Amino acid sequence: MPSAATTSVRILIGALTVIIGVTYKNYRDLSAPGKRPDLDSNEYWGPKLQGSYKENKAVLPYDISVAPELIADLKTQLDRPLKLQEPLEGVGFEYGFNANELQKVVKYWRESYLTKWNEHEQFLKKFKHFQTEIQGLKIHFIHVKPVKAEGKKVLPLLLLHGWPGSVREFYELLPLLTTGNDKSDYVFEVIAPSLPGYGWSQSASRPGFGAAQVSVVMRNLMLRLGFNKFLIQGGDWGSIIGSNLAALFPDNVLGYHSNMCGNSSPLANIRMLLSSFLPSFYIDSQYAHFYKGLGHLFKNLIMEEMGYAHIQATKPDTIGSALAHNPVGLAAYIFEKFSTWTNEEYKSLPDGGLTKRFSYDQLLDNIMVYYVTNSITTSVRLYAETMNSTQMGLNLESVHIHAPVGCARFLHELAHTPDSVLANKYRNLVHSTHYNEGGHFPAFEVPQQLYEDFASFVKKAFA
Amino acid sequence: MPSAATTSVRILIGALTVIIGVTYKNYRDLSAPGKRPDLDSNEYWGPKLQGSYKENKAVLPYDISVAPELIADLKTQLDRPLKLQEPLEGVGFEYGFNANELQKVVKYWRESYLTKWNEHEQFLKKFKHFQTEIQGLKIHFIHVKPVKAEGKKVLPLLLLHGWPGSVREFYELLPLLTTGNDKSDYVFEVIAPSLPGYGWSQSASRPGFGAAQVSVVMRNLMLRLGFNKFLIQGGDWGSIIGSNLAALFPDNVLGYHSNMCGNSSPLANIRMLLSSFLPSFYIDSQYAHFYKGLGHLFKNLIMEEMGYAHIQATKPDTIGSALAHNPVGLAAYIFEKFSTWTNEEYKSLPDGGLTKRFSYDQLLDNIMVYYVTNSITTSVRLYAETMNSTQMGLNLESVHIHAPVGCARFLHELAHTPDSVLANKYRNLVHSTHYNEGGHFPAFEVPQQLYEDFASFVKKAFA
Repeated sequence: MPSAATTSVRILIGALTVIIGVTYKNYRDLSAPGKRPDLDSNEYWGPKLQGSYKENKAVLPYDISVAPELIADLKTQLDRPLKLQEPLEGVGFEYGFNANELQKVVKYWRESYLTKWNEHEQFLKKFKHFQTEIQGLKIHFIHVKPVKAEGKKVLPLLLLHGWPGSVREFYELLPLLTTGNDKSDYVFEVIAPSLPGYGWSQSASRPGFGAAQVSVVMRNLMLRLGFNKFLIQGGDWGSIIGSNLAALFPDNVLGYHSNMCGNSSPLANIRMLLSSFLPSFYIDSQYAHFYKGLGHLFKNLIMEEMGYAHIQATKPDTIGSALAHNPVGLAAYIFEKFSTWTNEEYKSLPDGGLTKRFSYDQLLDNIMVYYVTNSITTSVRLYAETMNSTQMGLNLESVHIHAPVGCARFLHELAHTPDSVLANKYRNLVHSTHYNEGGHFPAFEVPQQLYEDFASFVKKAFA
Repeated sequence: MPSAATTSVRILIGALTVIIGVTYKNYRDLSAPGKRPDLDSNEYWGPKLQGSYKENKAVLPYDISVAPELIADLKTQLDRPLKLQEPLEGVGFEYGFNANELQKVVKYWRESYLTKWNEHEQFLKKFKHFQTEIQGLKIHFIHVKPVKAEGKKVLPLLLLHGWPGSVREFYELLPLLTTGNDKSDYVFEVIAPSLPGYGWSQSASRPGFGAAQVSVVMRNLMLRLGFNKFLIQGGDWGSIIGSNLAALFPDNVLGYHSNMCGNSSPLANIRMLLSSFLPSFYIDSQYAHFYKGLGHLFKNLIMEEMGYAHIQATKPDTIGSALAHNPVGLAAYIFEKFSTWTNEEYKSLPDGGLTKRFSYDQLLDNIMVYYVTNSITTSVRLYAETMNSTQMGLNLESVHIHAPVGCARFLHELAHTPDSVLANKYRNLVHSTHYNEGGHFPAFEVPQQLYEDFASFVKKAFA
């Protein structure tokens, strides 16, 4: 009769054998391509109708002019005495947006920015704005046709922003993409939409409109404009929506380029874990400083920086109501991201380093897009509609993408995913780069580098 | 030479032996009483001084009257057109505070509550308010002396609120505690302070003022008033601060009663894990429906309901600036908690069931405490100052408490901790109860039950 100790060891070995077997089987299952889900390409997302829906397919110029009363009312609000609590002594942005800096932002907004509102509005109108109706939603977009395109190959490009960004992020990048130059054989015809529920694009009226459903609308927009095959570029939500589009509609995608490439399939998560413990197997040593391991990811990203995503994914209408029609709150909430996501180290600065990489005017332009369209609530609902089990159940992250893919990594982005983790999803990763500057908003912060990186990707993709 | 497989099994067995050994050693270490940390009882938390600090020990009546201009300004703000986004079709409180209900709250606030502000202010003045200076902070408190106390034993009680509550939570409970009755041999002399940074109590001016430091101030307050030994009752932060006080100053605590007893020591976390897998070993079957296991804890509590705590622990000044001087946002942000934390099922109701257990007047009284004192930013800083490694490094949760302890559990509280998990910290758990109603705010919602439970605890503690 075996002793109790021997029995225990036998049980343990038996259990381990089962675990190893199950892991192996699952690993094989996990590395198999995910099944492409079948989403309704015509699903209606507008307000409840009495009769049946008849889509108005017209594409019309869109006037983004802001009603003068709205600007006057904003001035009145910014004129109110600011009753913020003093920051704690010696603190920069470690407790969030510093109230002393917020006082400065509000003063600038009121006394400098708004006094020149006509100029800013003209600047925002610099590109041509349009609107068309897709699946019950009025979708706004900027359309820039190429210039100096003689002898160049022209490719259509869907350019996708994220949160808390807007089409304004692309104003410095757009001329680079759409103007032919000596260095590239390509020039781009760019469609930059406001995501549904963001800026001038209408939001869904009922639950269930997550990143996958947004990608269906974005594809329909491109088809409406006559682009059956197009390139995609995006960061933040733009990156996720673009990747979903490439996974769902491979026939329409010429290539996908992102400055925030990610992969959250179960297999990718296992590899991410392994890459944290055995970095030398997964990461080129010269870029080791880009990949900070799971401890950093958990503490600095998930714990320190994901509070906003946590509340937006669960109580979007509460935080939305707190920020709606509240310019001071909106500035604190959104500008904080342009500080910390541009460079984590700016948290220790009293002014959050806000003007190190951006001007107040640039940042206020972007806030104005949210303010004048009153879209903060509908913008943050995208978190709730995407970070849930229904959306995850689509298993889009496991669908293989065979289109050419390019991934640009800017050093101060919140987290980076190594090629080895991306490779299982992006089967044709033709371009992968690392830059020792830049953060979460490269189109806004380092447009020249982003342009050059994108052009270099396109060259490789169609070589 | 052993085969590779045999070597692997040997390595695994070796590793398991080490793991079991380490676990056993740590379990023994973990179950040992934690060392009581030595906190400075006179640490100064006020604004930076030129000279040395001289504490003003006077205890003075405090007038909580609100400046009429502030009320007039609040009316102006509530009169502004409300530009909220419509809720999604068919949605109650699942996406956070429903904007239709918010419209109703704001209308009531403006048209009914504020038009009778004088009555509400008189009601808030119903108890005597005082202020005294402790460690550089002006601390506000209500002091209610017992009545009909002939033949009764009088005991002093420190009554502690939490977030987003205030002393207003106790207005229905206070007369029950302080008036002698036939059923109890005891009557209580109650001190109900506003926590520092909450309501009329001053906030710390520099970082580091967490729940442990708050408990030092609360003890000094009781000593200042001549109470060297006293009872403590609290929920939410009041529960944690009270427990810290009992751990740090055993000589001053006659007994501790809480409606949110918890234990987050490492050993308690292990037991909580075990109780989830093996509930029958840890939980009395008749109360099994109070303990919903780790899956529910993770999904319903941490994922669904802790977004507010996540942002408050990391970016308190951002969310504070968004809510400061913003009555509509404050109502959405705070009232949401009085819906969902009172009963999770109210999330499916279009009005969040707000008035099922409270009146708008009660809820607005509480909001007014935050609004008129502009204390939302300083109140939420308590999360950042407590949920960090320095505070956790004090290891207060492992310090044994030998004073009598009573734990009342109201069914709809967000989560409950079984006695078996509490027992290692609370060494003298004399009273443990379960009620099939009530939620996170029992003093406010079911004051009679909370009073009776507390009286029953005191009877057992001094039997």
